[in-house]
This record gives sequence, C-alpha cells and structure tokens, in this order.
Amino acid sequence: MNVHLLTIGDEILIGQIIDTNSAWMSRQLNLRGLRVTGKSSVSDTREAIVDGLEQAARFADVVIMTGGLGPTKDDITKKTLADHFGSGMSFHQETYDRMAAYFAKIGRKLPDAAVIQATLPDDAVLLTNKVGSAPGMWFEQAGKVFVSLPGVPFEMEYLMSAEVLPRLSARFPGRPIAHRTLRTAGEGESNIAKRIEAFEDSLPENIKLAYLPSLGQVRLRLTGRWDSDPVPPDAEAQLGALLDAKAAELLAIIPDLVYGYDEETLEQVLGRMLRERGLQFATAESCTGGHVAHLITSVPGASDYFPGSIVSYANSVKENLLGVRPDTLVHFGAVSDETVREMVAGALTTLGADVALAISGIAGPDGGTPDKPVGTVWMAVGNRNRIVSEKHVFGRDRTKNIQLAGVYALNLVRKFLLGQV
Amino acid sequence: MNVHLLTIGDEILIGQIIDTNSAWMSRQLNLRGLRVTGKSSVSDTREAIVDGLEQAARFADVVIMTGGLGPTKDDITKKTLADHFGSGMSFHQETYDRMAAYFAKIGRKLPDAAVIQATLPDDAVLLTNKVGSAPGMWFEQAGKVFVSLPGVPFEMEYLMSAEVLPRLSARFPGRPIAHRTLRTAGEGESNIAKRIEAFEDSLPENIKLAYLPSLGQVRLRLTGRWDSDPVPPDAEAQLGALLDAKAAELLAIIPDLVYGYDEETLEQVLGRMLRERGLQFATAESCTGGHVAHLITSVPGASDYFPGSIVSYANSVKENLLGVRPDTLVHFGAVSDETVREMVAGALTTLGADVALAISGIAGPDGGTPDKPVGTVWMAVGNRNRIVSEKHVFGRDRTKNIQLAGVYALNLVRKFLLGQV
Repeated sequence: MNVHLLTIGDEILIGQIIDTNSAWMSRQLNLRGLRVTGKSSVSDTREAIVDGLEQAARFADVVIMTGGLGPTKDDITKKTLADHFGSGMSFHQETYDRMAAYFAKIGRKLPDAAVIQATLPDDAVLLTNKVGSAPGMWFEQAGKVFVSLPGVPFEMEYLMSAEVLPRLSARFPGRPIAHRTLRTAGEGESNIAKRIEAFEDSLPENIKLAYLPSLGQVRLRLTGRWDSDPVPPDAEAQLGALLDAKAAELLAIIPDLVYGYDEETLEQVLGRMLRERGLQFATAESCTGGHVAHLITSVPGASDYFPGSIVSYANSVKENLLGVRPDTLVHFGAVSDETVREMVAGALTTLGADVALAISGIAGPDGGTPDKPVGTVWMAVGNRNRIVSEKHVFGRDRTKNIQLAGVYALNLVRKFLLGQV
Repeated sequence: MNVHLLTIGDEILIGQIIDTNSAWMSRQLNLRGLRVTGKSSVSDTREAIVDGLEQAARFADVVIMTGGLGPTKDDITKKTLADHFGSGMSFHQETYDRMAAYFAKIGRKLPDAAVIQATLPDDAVLLTNKVGSAPGMWFEQAGKVFVSLPGVPFEMEYLMSAEVLPRLSARFPGRPIAHRTLRTAGEGESNIAKRIEAFEDSLPENIKLAYLPSLGQVRLRLTGRWDSDPVPPDAEAQLGALLDAKAAELLAIIPDLVYGYDEETLEQVLGRMLRERGLQFATAESCTGGHVAHLITSVPGASDYFPGSIVSYANSVKENLLGVRPDTLVHFGAVSDETVREMVAGALTTLGADVALAISGIAGPDGGTPDKPVGTVWMAVGNRNRIVSEKHVFGRDRTKNIQLAGVYALNLVRKFLLGQV
C-alpha cells in the first residue's frame, strides 16, 4: 500500500512556508503501516495539479493532497479535481449551514466566499471539517483513492485523524501493527547503538527498532507487525504483550538513559514528578538566559510546582539576588563548579524552593578561553541537604549550546529526584 | 528559467526530519529571479532516483538534488548519477586530502568511508565543500543543469551560497533583480494591506510587493526587476535607487509598524538600540515564563545590555523580589495594569536596570474568567521617570500566546526607547 503526498500551492514552492504537514502525515501513516513512497509540490494551476496527480498515481494506491482550498483559490483546485474525476459540482446546503454555524461560534463574519466553498464535487465523499471551513474530499478512481485536504496544519491534522486514517484502515485492511517508544536523553545515537547491539540483533523478524534523534535526545521506537495468516482475534493483544516485553528488556539495558515513553516530553515528565512529590522547583540561569524556565512553563499547570527563575546574566545579579560570593567569582570565575553550587543555594532561599537548578556557561560564539572553550557549561541541582554538579563541553553554535544545556539540565534534575545522581 | 528541487532519502519520506532545506533554497533562488516550479522527494534506491530525475527534467532547466550523499549511502546516489549521465568514477586525491585536512582541523578521525567519498564521477564539476566532507557535483546534459548537494543544512547552505548560486547566475544570465524588506510587528496582514492599498496600486509594473507573515510579524518585501533591453551598465544602481525610494515611501505610510530591515530580527534591533544608548535593560516575566529573556539572550553579546530577568511565576516571587504590594494582587489581580507597573518598578531596582519590561497574563489553556479570558496579557515598560502599559487579548493556544506576547513586548520596549509610546 503506497501513499503519495502532493502539496498544492505557491507558498511551498517560493519557500514562504516550511512544509511541516508532510512530515506529520508521513509519521501518522507510517505508524499505521502505510508507506509514503513519494512526495511532490506543484503550483496551483490546472495544468500543474493534473500533472502532479497523474505522476503521483503512477506508483501510489493513495494520493493525499493538501492546500489549494483557501477561499481565494478554491475554484482552481476543486474544479480541477471535479473535472479530472468526471464529476459535476453542486451547492451543498448542509456544508454551507455548518460553515455558518462554525463562523458564528468563533464570533466571526461568514466570508463572502462561503457559497463558493460550499459548492462541491458531486462524486466526492465529503469529510466534515469541524475545526475550519473547507471540507475534505475523498475520490475513488480505478481502485485508487485520492484525498484533498486543506493546508492549514490543524485542519489537516483534524481531518487526517478523524476521517482519513480510519477510512484508509477500513479501505485497505492490513495486519495489526503497534509501537512502543522509549525516550532517552544525554547520550548520542552511536553510543546507544553500541550498548543495545545485542538486544537489537536478538529482535525477532517482525519487530524493528528505529532511532529518532533530536538535539540531546534519541527516541527508540519499537514497531511490531503481525506477520502470519490467519490473523487471530487476539493478535493485537499478543503483539502488544510482545512489544511490552521487548520494551522492558530494552529499558533494563539502558535504565540510566530512558526518561519516558511515547509522546511525553522531558519537561512534562519532570513536571509530573515534581507534582507527584509536592515539590517546588526553581531555576537560576546564566548562559541559558531563561530558556530552561521557558521549557518548564511551556507545560500547562507549571505554576503548581514552579515559583520562578532568576536569570542572572550579570555577575552583580548573581551576587545580589543569588548570594554568590564575590570571592568565588574572582577565584573560580562565573563558569565554575563553585559558582553554580552557590547559585543553587541562593535560588533555594531567594525563590523559596525545595529543589533548584543552576546553569552557567559560555554559549558563544565569543568568550571562550583555552581552559574554558566556547560550549563549556557547568550545571548543578540540589536541595537543602545535597548539591550535585556536572560539567559539559558542547560545541561552537550558540543556539545549539543553549538548547543542549536545557536538555541536559532537565535530565539532571530528573535523575536527582530519582536519587540516580 | 525553471528549477526543480529533488530531495533524496527516506528520512524525509518517513517524516523523521522536516524538509527545511527546500524552503531555504526556494527563497534564495527566488531572490535571484530563478523560479522553483516543482519539488519532489524520492527514496534512495536507484530506480526511484532515476525516475525522480527524469520527471524533474521534463519541465525544469535546472534540477537541484539534496541528500543521499552520507558516508553510508554514498554509493547509490553517486553511482546512479554517474551511470545516468554516462560518466566513469575515479578516486580523487585532491578531495581526499581536503577531507583529511578538514577532519584534522575539527579534531576527528578521518572516517573509513573517506576513500569512497573521494571516489567521484569524472564528468562532474566538483563543488568544494569547505564545511564538510562530501563535495557537491554539477552535471550538464542536453542544455540542462543537474546539481547534487549534501542534505546537511549548513553544508547545503554553504555550497548553494558559495558555488551553486553564483554559477547559476553566470550560466543563465538574466536581467538585474533586487529586493528591499521592511519588517513590521504588531499588526495583521489584512490591516496592513488596507493601510498601504494606494501605495501598492501605485507601484510600477516592475516592482512587486510580497507579504511574508509570521506570528505577530509581517515582512513586506519589495522586489524590483529590470524589465527592458538593452540593460545599461548602471541598471543595478538605478534599480537600487528606485527600490530605496519606494521603501522610503512605504515607511512614511506605516512608520509606527516598521521596526527594521532585511535580516535584522526584533531582538537584534532592540539589542542594537540598547547598546547605542548605553542602557541596561531587565525583564520581569510571569506568563511568558522566561521566553522574553531567552529571545534577548539569543543575540550574541547580550550581556553588554542585559543584566537579567526575574521570572515571577508565583505571587510570592512578585512580592518578595519585585516588591509588588499584596494589596495590589488582592484588589486588581496578578494580571492587571497595576501589577505590571509595580513589576517594572521592582525590576528596575532589584536588577539594577535603566529600563525594564514586565509581563503578566493568562497563557492558558485554563485559568481564564469572563472578565479576563485566556489570552489576556498585560505588559508595561518604563524607566525611573515614566511607565507605559498595554493590554492585549490573544487567543486560546498557550504556545502562541507566549510567542505573541514576546513579539508585542519587545516591540513595546522598542517604541518606548524611541519615545513613540
């Protein structure tokens, strides 16, 4: 079952927007065992759309189009599709009424283009868009499926989740497929690969392991497919149990690296742990300049466990608000074990926290010395009884250094709460 | 002159990475008057690459490929291209030596795959990669150009800027083209369009205006093309002078919205203004949770003008560190004009700043009331003599509310420094 993704519209071609839709769709399709074998982008002219469709359909069983359905461009894509699939167009009262109700609900005037948007191909199955105006359209021709969706990401995501993916599963029933993702932080892909080599080699044929790296983190995704016929009624349960067992095996090899599962982010895991323990957590940031506080407060409800942060970019702020001793700064420097430990102690007192994190480093691109090159970052976490610290030397890129320091620091706090450091 | 962008590799097809390369390349090509008429992605198999090339070359004069050149995948893409263009392959000592020198410089071991990476098609013009290992390749066939580049963004960007774009300009000389971009903040696309409608209508045929929106900001790009023959020697200077005049006209209509030009971001503009004025600037953030401090410190050298920030998520921090009166919090609430004004006064004193910004709001998704719905944000800026404040009501999305508050707040500080508020 091959899928081709076709984006329609000049916004992508001129580089005005980055195509995040295709990556999201690919991941969702892959998770259900549907393989994306090609992607393409065409302009919103009749000729380009028809050519794009014809090329896409050469190798694919399903073509999913996004874009070209906005109120001003409506005509071209929709009419082109109707003509291409030999369908007439009619005004669709039900769609018009739903759009009117939708715009009333969000307190906006129904656009003049609503009549045009509610004029739809007769032969398309309409996919009801509950989060926007233009409905999706589902055509079938010569055993192949062609789907047209709006390009606005949250409308596309809604229609894919609520309509397209369930319909595709029903239209092309396959064998069960399931996934378990372990999220790791603080170790690179190749080092993880070395540690779990024997595990990976021992996996049965029907379970694959994928490495999904991002800055400072690697997600390990186990994908299991049922690979024999007939498929028994409890196949999904059997597959799930097998994956759970393999995920547990994997965890047992790298318990120090795994911080969570599936979609839960590091800042969400940390927030959950702080809430469960009833702890107040504060930060004192120098080189990360507020980035860590921003990560923590990106989680809804963070005010339950996060009183605040002191971003102490200047040494005077480290001294006055965090109680770092001038002597410490003179003798050891702002980027030192001694300074981050004093910052932790200061943050606990000043912000009234049970646990505090401190970070001080040289983000770059300037400010490095032979002893402390750009990318050197000291971080410490502690409570009233105990403080632990770590030194890292990241790279030369300011933005990456700030982001890497954020990941390593949150992970350090997590390990501290678990008594692992 | 039509260009097709072809990405090679499964990372894009399975959605493991978002294709940011294509958008960057499209913008750079567009800026030079080269039109991207199609984009596609194929798997890194011989059949898929050849089919992708053939389809791309149907309508394009130039095909630019990215990806498929990594040390492990090297063979397939490079050999496929050599075969397709009827070229042999040879070991290329100069490339090998350059790679060895490059790896020595970054202090890493030369990979075993270096010999393979230095084995290259005889008929390709090699594009020297000074920031990585694999060189780019430039083929010509039947009057068309085919370029193969590594997929790593900074290597691709280096090779495009240093090699591909200058060669394309020389190979397909066109008429002069030039751009001027005005950056605005705090007003939506449609409202800007209304204010500058007469200006837009008055533009000569050879100057186009593009709206490039992002969250809270719109860039207005004027593109001028020389549209007559012969092209005089001073055509570029004439075009530049015309664009400068039009940019000045546009600025005169919306002086309140324009904060900068071309590639300079809002946080860079603000940083430059603070440095020029010799001012120390601090922030006190509640709902933005450190995001504004993070934006300010994302600019290298921010320590010259930014002593720090107090992220006062809890009311106790607002009281203890910023001196907000308990009475104020009880009577007006944490999200109020009164509170943000007291936060500014507190930040000036506590952080030793000349100018301070304060923000308090309801980021959501919960916490709204009928009087103060989710998305309500109060912000204030001031010095020892004067404080001004603004209230905004953004939307329901937590992430967007935090980002929008950041843009509006930085812009408010900018206007305060200019005496515009």
